[in-house]
Amino acid sequence: MTDSNAEKRTELSELGEFGLIDRLTKNINLVQPSTLKGVGDDAAVIDAGDRVTLVTTDQLNEGIHFDLRYVPLKHLGYKSAIVNFSDIYAMNGTPRQMVIGLSVSNRFPVEALEEIYEGILQACKEHSVDLVGGDTTSSASGLFISITVIGDAQKEKVCYRNGAKQNDLLCVSGDLGAAYMGLLLLEREKNEFLANPNMQPDLSGHPYPLERQLKPSARKDIIKLLEVHQIKPTSMIDISDGLASEIIHITTESGCGATIYEDKIPIDPSTVSLAEEFNIIPSIAALNGGEDYELLFTISLADYEKIKDIPEISVIGHITEASAGNNLISNDGASIPLKAQGWNHMSKN
Amino acid sequence: MTDSNAEKRTELSELGEFGLIDRLTKNINLVQPSTLKGVGDDAAVIDAGDRVTLVTTDQLNEGIHFDLRYVPLKHLGYKSAIVNFSDIYAMNGTPRQMVIGLSVSNRFPVEALEEIYEGILQACKEHSVDLVGGDTTSSASGLFISITVIGDAQKEKVCYRNGAKQNDLLCVSGDLGAAYMGLLLLEREKNEFLANPNMQPDLSGHPYPLERQLKPSARKDIIKLLEVHQIKPTSMIDISDGLASEIIHITTESGCGATIYEDKIPIDPSTVSLAEEFNIIPSIAALNGGEDYELLFTISLADYEKIKDIPEISVIGHITEASAGNNLISNDGASIPLKAQGWNHMSKN
Repeated sequence: MTDSNAEKRTELSELGEFGLIDRLTKNINLVQPSTLKGVGDDAAVIDAGDRVTLVTTDQLNEGIHFDLRYVPLKHLGYKSAIVNFSDIYAMNGTPRQMVIGLSVSNRFPVEALEEIYEGILQACKEHSVDLVGGDTTSSASGLFISITVIGDAQKEKVCYRNGAKQNDLLCVSGDLGAAYMGLLLLEREKNEFLANPNMQPDLSGHPYPLERQLKPSARKDIIKLLEVHQIKPTSMIDISDGLASEIIHITTESGCGATIYEDKIPIDPSTVSLAEEFNIIPSIAALNGGEDYELLFTISLADYEKIKDIPEISVIGHITEASAGNNLISNDGASIPLKAQGWNHMSKN
Repeated sequence: MTDSNAEKRTELSELGEFGLIDRLTKNINLVQPSTLKGVGDDAAVIDAGDRVTLVTTDQLNEGIHFDLRYVPLKHLGYKSAIVNFSDIYAMNGTPRQMVIGLSVSNRFPVEALEEIYEGILQACKEHSVDLVGGDTTSSASGLFISITVIGDAQKEKVCYRNGAKQNDLLCVSGDLGAAYMGLLLLEREKNEFLANPNMQPDLSGHPYPLERQLKPSARKDIIKLLEVHQIKPTSMIDISDGLASEIIHITTESGCGATIYEDKIPIDPSTVSLAEEFNIIPSIAALNGGEDYELLFTISLADYEKIKDIPEISVIGHITEASAGNNLISNDGASIPLKAQGWNHMSKN
């Protein structure tokens, strides 16, 4: 009874992320006049008079998105909340409320759930978000966290992915690649620990990449800065999947191309040094790593004067016509086409 | 690293549903002025001017909430949506948008996800709800569905659980106990099939209990009827956990008691006949079974004239003072205290 299409079996891995989204969402017909934007951006946008309600949801699954052998439960809860707040900020909105679904097997005691909640509530406190509901249930095995965040924004301030225009400047907040290097460090120490359980993990000397991986920030401060400087990005997205993939989201949705410059990509010195230890080119960590939760956005050239002296924001390139494609100008002057890589835990629509 | 409270281990089963909710939610401080109601009702209530936004979330997990050996995937998707719509109706609101989280192991092909989506989209179509976002991810094992529904209501029409007053009438829509009997029937046939795989399951003769279990309704029509008859319930809840448990929710939140009459509980003849086949007292199926997704509500005595001729609504008892407790007057005139039983998949807050 479980499969009436038993004759056909398409493996999830065959379709890839975007193919799967297309397959699952192609039959959606929107009927509510209040639905301004459905699937396809960082958050859905719902009309609420002069404001809009923003809704985003994310799942974090044990063994897929996190490994409890090196992720403390409190950090896990914190990060689960932050990644959703980041999606609301990426719409130029403010997160306000959260509902949470927790599914846990009986190998977890109540104290474990309390630790997860503690992390979630700490993130909520820092971002003034109210936890307003949830559903805590048993799972046959494993830990699954599903968080939905509701936010709002002034209607005319919402930033979609599809508003980038030719000659706009591509900007990014903070620095990139550190979260990915933190992950590689944790993976390396886990593997060494598994090989030799008496060994103590050596995580010293890399506090920044570790913190970026385990306790990322959502850039509320950047949204405030944009407001203070009266800058409305023409498009915006948060960087969860690596810079290259996010640039391609914006240019695909906006019907344009982009050129970025390797030497403009902001990378922290500690990321560079850890990348060298791993024999990885730091810009590759920034382009194809993920989980930095910085904001990538485009602004009109006319806003350059407003933004150029904000230290937390880097201009990394500009928007081109679609036919030019998406390219990185490397430090040695070569033009390299960008490819969407990075995380692929199936599909976020 | 995964458990900093390693010295303490409280099993989830020790606390029970309400104990767990208390433990996990005791540190929640609401800070957003727009949060009118957080944890503790069918949905959270968020201020949106002259209207409110309602938010509810539910999880359905394989092996806990459903068994794919007898639940078709399309029905599973349909029901996952319906149970959330029901929570919005229970606030006297209208569901408008949905986001969905799906976590699946690679034993599921794309076609299986499409069937789930088909069921979800059918429910959405019937209730004019827009699917506006989601996150589809891998799970190490099993299928997990997490749905959040956004609705709205006029501010003055929202019905909470806590508004029941002494002498109010307790009303219920439709009929009860059928979904539970449908479940018992499916379980029996599954067990017989497991014992003898050559046997064909015998589900004939019981279409109504089976449909109530596999393809429940959410009572949009009752919300409309209440509006047409200008009745605003003083309290309302949907019946997901069995009538007894839901009555106790209302009386606990409202600080009162309730008396109901066994002979007033609406039970379909086909439920009665199947209950007899299973040697179960039909009213026990209604009181302690679950998943009927009917609405339980209280109305002022003054509204009795408006409601008494609506065939879809039964008056089953009345609200008393708290000290009288919650009691069932059985067919033979005995007074039996009601106990909260029914589903306990941990906690819904």
